[in-house]
Amino acid sequence: MVNRTYPEFSSHYPLLLTTFMKRPVKVYPNEIGVVYRNHITGKYYRFTWLEWYKRTCRLANALKTLKIKPGGPFKPGDRIATMALNTHRHLEIYYAAPCSGAMLHPINVRLSQDHIIFTIKHAEDKILFFDDSLLPLVEGIYDKIKDTIKKFVYMSDKSGLPDTKIQNLYEYEELLKEESDVFEWPHLSEDNYATLCYTTGTTGLPKGSMFTHRAIYLLIIHGLAYGVFSNDPSRVYLGENAIPMIITPLFHIHAWGAPFYHVFMALRIVLPGTFTVEGFCELVQTEKVTSVAVVPTILALLLEYKDLDKYDLSSLVSVAVGGGALPLGLKTKIEKKIPGFTASSGYGMTETAPTTVAAFVKKYMKGWSKEKLDEVRVKTGLPYPGLEVDVVDENGKPIPHDNNALGQIVIRGPWVMEKYYKNPEKTAAVWYDGWFHTGDMAKIDEEDFLVIADRMSDIIRSGAEMVPTVLLENLIAMADFVLEATVVGVPDEVWGEKTMAIMKLVPNSNKKEEDLIEFLKTEGVDKGKITNWMLPKLVVIVNEIPRTSVGKFNKIEIRKNLDEFLSKAKDIKTN
Amino acid sequence: MVNRTYPEFSSHYPLLLTTFMKRPVKVYPNEIGVVYRNHITGKYYRFTWLEWYKRTCRLANALKTLKIKPGGPFKPGDRIATMALNTHRHLEIYYAAPCSGAMLHPINVRLSQDHIIFTIKHAEDKILFFDDSLLPLVEGIYDKIKDTIKKFVYMSDKSGLPDTKIQNLYEYEELLKEESDVFEWPHLSEDNYATLCYTTGTTGLPKGSMFTHRAIYLLIIHGLAYGVFSNDPSRVYLGENAIPMIITPLFHIHAWGAPFYHVFMALRIVLPGTFTVEGFCELVQTEKVTSVAVVPTILALLLEYKDLDKYDLSSLVSVAVGGGALPLGLKTKIEKKIPGFTASSGYGMTETAPTTVAAFVKKYMKGWSKEKLDEVRVKTGLPYPGLEVDVVDENGKPIPHDNNALGQIVIRGPWVMEKYYKNPEKTAAVWYDGWFHTGDMAKIDEEDFLVIADRMSDIIRSGAEMVPTVLLENLIAMADFVLEATVVGVPDEVWGEKTMAIMKLVPNSNKKEEDLIEFLKTEGVDKGKITNWMLPKLVVIVNEIPRTSVGKFNKIEIRKNLDEFLSKAKDIKTN
Repeated sequence: MVNRTYPEFSSHYPLLLTTFMKRPVKVYPNEIGVVYRNHITGKYYRFTWLEWYKRTCRLANALKTLKIKPGGPFKPGDRIATMALNTHRHLEIYYAAPCSGAMLHPINVRLSQDHIIFTIKHAEDKILFFDDSLLPLVEGIYDKIKDTIKKFVYMSDKSGLPDTKIQNLYEYEELLKEESDVFEWPHLSEDNYATLCYTTGTTGLPKGSMFTHRAIYLLIIHGLAYGVFSNDPSRVYLGENAIPMIITPLFHIHAWGAPFYHVFMALRIVLPGTFTVEGFCELVQTEKVTSVAVVPTILALLLEYKDLDKYDLSSLVSVAVGGGALPLGLKTKIEKKIPGFTASSGYGMTETAPTTVAAFVKKYMKGWSKEKLDEVRVKTGLPYPGLEVDVVDENGKPIPHDNNALGQIVIRGPWVMEKYYKNPEKTAAVWYDGWFHTGDMAKIDEEDFLVIADRMSDIIRSGAEMVPTVLLENLIAMADFVLEATVVGVPDEVWGEKTMAIMKLVPNSNKKEEDLIEFLKTEGVDKGKITNWMLPKLVVIVNEIPRTSVGKFNKIEIRKNLDEFLSKAKDIKTN
Repeated sequence: MVNRTYPEFSSHYPLLLTTFMKRPVKVYPNEIGVVYRNHITGKYYRFTWLEWYKRTCRLANALKTLKIKPGGPFKPGDRIATMALNTHRHLEIYYAAPCSGAMLHPINVRLSQDHIIFTIKHAEDKILFFDDSLLPLVEGIYDKIKDTIKKFVYMSDKSGLPDTKIQNLYEYEELLKEESDVFEWPHLSEDNYATLCYTTGTTGLPKGSMFTHRAIYLLIIHGLAYGVFSNDPSRVYLGENAIPMIITPLFHIHAWGAPFYHVFMALRIVLPGTFTVEGFCELVQTEKVTSVAVVPTILALLLEYKDLDKYDLSSLVSVAVGGGALPLGLKTKIEKKIPGFTASSGYGMTETAPTTVAAFVKKYMKGWSKEKLDEVRVKTGLPYPGLEVDVVDENGKPIPHDNNALGQIVIRGPWVMEKYYKNPEKTAAVWYDGWFHTGDMAKIDEEDFLVIADRMSDIIRSGAEMVPTVLLENLIAMADFVLEATVVGVPDEVWGEKTMAIMKLVPNSNKKEEDLIEFLKTEGVDKGKITNWMLPKLVVIVNEIPRTSVGKFNKIEIRKNLDEFLSKAKDIKTN
């Protein structure tokens, strides 16, 4: 008898996104799986999992017709780019492209035109799928990308192609119509590249992070598993009955994993096109959305919305916050407005696919008061199991766990990118000594929690000391008159740098700059959370704080226009 | 600049049991992690995670001193055998051996001596770690294994070596004392073999299933993740505050994953040595045990225990049942005795590491009545996500999902064993057409649940029909006078085989054989669950039903002593 061992179907069974894609159609074929609301027309589109799966099969067949070539293990296949919002079509491409062996490049449409053109050329994208609402943007860059991109696919809820100069243009729904709804998904290597995600490029040209099927699969399965480790008494277990709305754009580093978590769990997925406050409230109310992941800005926008009380948002019970530290004040305010709404924070970056560290209530904290637990929930937290995370000094030595030392966060593990696409120099700048270097600063507190302090480039150096800006920002946001706030360093003859606080007040507040310092003295200095020298020397009240394309405070923009901020700033003696 | 990509610390970061081992000492170094109670002396031994980890490091150093050679990827390292109960020492070996590159072979001490000797010689075990209580057993086989095993390690709560003929004998605690409590765990390949587990060998010689670190890691991480998919309203979420007692012997296929799940989650682990009813009750009460995984027999033993009501077992809220179908009657009875106790069933086998299919409440069943949900919870259920499971006919074609057709369960996925150790013939008998063939029969019902019908070899063929014996057994166990029951086929001149039911009554019951048939008519035939021809033709009431070494009903033993059973059987006319 022959020795038939089938390693490819046993120990070496590949970890593929295909496994995620196939689960819902197997378990819940006839349940509504995907709900999309066009944020302009307000129209709803609903698909059962079987319908969604068949459309994805049709798309995979269409990619073959369009002559997309799959890549081998650790050799990128043809790149398929998208310029698209959060629609069912984008979700279809998220699976059809990688699962048929191609590499998905979701373009951040909020980048500058130059950077968009750069990423398309650098990635050598072969096809571009784009939304009708982004037609002007595509037309604007068309002349510079038409030699790279061979075929364009137009996606719209209305049928027919627009009148445009774009050549080689196909219509998405027409493409699908002509194809079979059966597709034999290949048994790929798990080392095939699935996605190519560019960094925001705030400090230079965007860099392309590549992720294999294996890397994404292991991020998601560890992330799910981590859910059962949770000791947070406020956690609501919804199982497969959770109804998430994907607000994070699908063009931001896998929308933090949402399209993979939710499809694998066969949750009903709500897609809002793009975020609008009205659209958000309407969708939560009509779809009974239970879970969202957001940047802190979204919470601030909700708080500001005058019609918020007109909607029934009581279904919302789980909010994950990322892309910036979660100010405790903001958390408290939003939880007051929407009872049931409980938020906690996480940390990650493009190069880590993205999630690496998340808020975590340790087992012995279970009985702590809500106030103490809230402080834990906004600390960035503990590394995901399966990942190694440390904080090291300039010599690569781990810093002491004493709540004082600051160091750089370093990470390694199965879902950290191996290298930047075609960029060995930048790769070597982050990968050395066996660790990926994040460029983010943190301390480790007495509970062994990692507390993010700042980007290395954003750190404020005052004399020999470093101001923990995120800690300051969190303290400021606890003031009930502050809607959002950031702090930056400005040049100072004596200290090298001094701290400027920039804040936006809640609607109709009549508080002044001095009130902030008073608040920080009482709640910060007197309570031992900060020392006197950390108090901002300058305070500015503004209507808008500049933000980056991914919704973070844009400190580079602030520094560029420093004179304007300084002219409005109030100098406050703090001693 | 050089291209430093570190694939071994990024996408290819190995999935190792080492990652599980290191988590508790990092997150909860000073919490009690392991509690062991000697089932003979009744003494307790408690270890913090730091203590347990340091002991495991000492053991890994001792293995080096004993000259254990690690194996490469897909090449077995030196085999380390254990003949041991559920003690902290066994748990230490469970990590020290595989994580230092050796292969762990936990010997099922309930096998026949011949089979134990066979597995030791077949595995070429180099070291044998054994418990003091098993000294007579080891002495009994010593002459036949002394040429294979180079070193013996004696494990006892009392210090000193026994007076014995065994040569090359070391004492466990002495070995540890001499070693450093620091160990540099190697960055192994995930394809290194970690464990070698032999099948029970009910139908021939035991066969050795080999599992790589990757295979076990992926089983555990999928198993954990599956916890967050749960829609069962009775599920209690304990997070890291769960306190499991490992009752399943560590020598039964990874104790169903317990040493890996619990260490990774840093749960307080309670080890009872071996199962005794008194020990179980005492440990639940003193340690506030929340979770156990058991074979149905254990539940039957508890029900029979006269002092059960003297203990406070209210902490027990989660019971997983495997190793045999969970009779609904048994479930109902035990839940009545111990409120809070909720049980559900799973399915697996040695070759699948073991878990593959588990009870699952689908999202739309959430609001169902307790009665209906209980029926769902004892159906074997749905495949674990990440695994492919199907039921096929004799030609390998999937059977229809209509609750009628019977077929063989076939499985493939990352934690199915690739091959039997040194046994290509048996490997080829189970691995063909790209699937591992389980030899178990099942149907798929209208909800798409896999319902185990029987072992292929246990199936009863009556005329042209196959009797679904597990369905019958479940129905019988619903009778409140039945403690446990099984059915087997006996030769019949007319029908080929006819069905004999063997039952053990609850204490002090005065029910007769005919009462069972009456019950099956009312609850089975009249309610459409079975048809008239499926009713047993023979019924036997016994004091004990024979069991295999892993606690399943031993139908082979019953068939061997068929005349004895037939002499007691009552022939019942059912028409």
